[in-house]
Amino acid sequence: MNATRAVFFISDRTGVTAENLGNSLLNQFNGIAFECTTVPFVDSMQRAESLLEQILECAQRRDEKIIVFSSLVNAELRTVFDYHDAIFHIDFFNTFIPSLEGVLQKPSSMIVGLTHGIINEKRYDERMEAVNFALNNDDGITEKNYDEADIILIGVSRSGKTPTCLYLALQYGILAANYPLTPEDLDHAQLPRMIKNHRSKLFGLTIDYQRLSRIRQERRPNSKYANQTHCDYEVRTAESLFKRFDIPYLSTTHKSVEELAAAIIQLKQLIRRC
Amino acid sequence: MNATRAVFFISDRTGVTAENLGNSLLNQFNGIAFECTTVPFVDSMQRAESLLEQILECAQRRDEKIIVFSSLVNAELRTVFDYHDAIFHIDFFNTFIPSLEGVLQKPSSMIVGLTHGIINEKRYDERMEAVNFALNNDDGITEKNYDEADIILIGVSRSGKTPTCLYLALQYGILAANYPLTPEDLDHAQLPRMIKNHRSKLFGLTIDYQRLSRIRQERRPNSKYANQTHCDYEVRTAESLFKRFDIPYLSTTHKSVEELAAAIIQLKQLIRRC
Repeated sequence: MNATRAVFFISDRTGVTAENLGNSLLNQFNGIAFECTTVPFVDSMQRAESLLEQILECAQRRDEKIIVFSSLVNAELRTVFDYHDAIFHIDFFNTFIPSLEGVLQKPSSMIVGLTHGIINEKRYDERMEAVNFALNNDDGITEKNYDEADIILIGVSRSGKTPTCLYLALQYGILAANYPLTPEDLDHAQLPRMIKNHRSKLFGLTIDYQRLSRIRQERRPNSKYANQTHCDYEVRTAESLFKRFDIPYLSTTHKSVEELAAAIIQLKQLIRRC
Repeated sequence: MNATRAVFFISDRTGVTAENLGNSLLNQFNGIAFECTTVPFVDSMQRAESLLEQILECAQRRDEKIIVFSSLVNAELRTVFDYHDAIFHIDFFNTFIPSLEGVLQKPSSMIVGLTHGIINEKRYDERMEAVNFALNNDDGITEKNYDEADIILIGVSRSGKTPTCLYLALQYGILAANYPLTPEDLDHAQLPRMIKNHRSKLFGLTIDYQRLSRIRQERRPNSKYANQTHCDYEVRTAESLFKRFDIPYLSTTHKSVEELAAAIIQLKQLIRRC
């Protein structure tokens, strides 16, 4: 038996859906290591058949059934991967579309590229504008756009503000600014001038001080900035500030940007633009 | 009949998978407008039952079957939404996990939060480092990290370099720098000094000049920068440069960052870190 299992994610476009789908399922089988290959833009019979050949060779070489997750809109291309003993094909569209057609009482359009393409230019541009907004309002550079912001993340340096803002922008089109709580801000035990008039938009991020120290060590080894005692002080003081001013906050220690973004949207009831 | 159809995406974590799954399918039914609600963190029986109540009320109010896409790992929570006449439940895990268990000859672990959480801290930190790399190497700020870069995107101002770099970082952990081709660079018709020693890492982005002009108008209305003739000149000259130096390139006019990232990874055979 092989030490790993080979998996292919096949898509007529980016592969993001097939990967997402496949990984969600495969993650439920811990103890098995998967060797994953994503093949995007399988949009012609020629590409599908050459990929089929590659997969069948892989099956023969490994002497195992290959797991294939496909999100191919075109039914003709999809069936290329059906009915092979060497392939276990999870066909995303074929599994769900027929029953949805029944419920919606309408045939599906089966048009390629609708999910991660630019369907609506205006909406796409809004998302890109949100990315620019996050970049222009990162790290307390300026407060002049805070009126426009949907949310302002605050927290000590390296608590995870910037990636969370960028994810909120890229995934949901949310206008997210962030303001870093400096040691001086923390010493004053008051809300900094730049943000105090925007209380309702503030959301705090905190982090375990040991993890913070490790992250800061990468940036400035052996500095006061990265020192554990100092990190502990910053984190505790920031949390006190959040509590005193009734600012909702979350810890980024064990949460990914995806989880933080979803939780912030839910807690602050933010309106998503996509 | 209602003008829209109500849809719920239900997840025990972020909802990203359920949304992605559901939207991919719903996008195939054009002409129908969907009113979508994402409910993340449905991780207790209490939350599931209160959500069920909300959905059943919605069905009654609208007098229609509600479409529910769930990615709930816990089987007990999932079944809360089964067997209701008013709910059409697409149960992502239950659909695929049993057959995968058969192929893999192993029961699934059914642990919540594996997909968009931090499973592997080191890998997650690499992704976040890639985001920092993109930010620190944006817009030709510095060339000192180009040796480390996996890819350097080049193109005229507002051709889409920054969001593409950020997406490559956030989604795939790829170290993506970018360098803006200035009008001065273009006049010289040579590869700019900062990038000419990194030819193998260069990838060009181009854009339709009319779309570029519209995007630049938003930033600096009625400027030479946004002028159509000037945009046309910049775009044509940049494309000539790509061709002369044999730099692969793509147009961002009708491609989303998701599509650009997938295509760049494929064309340049980049190694993904996640």
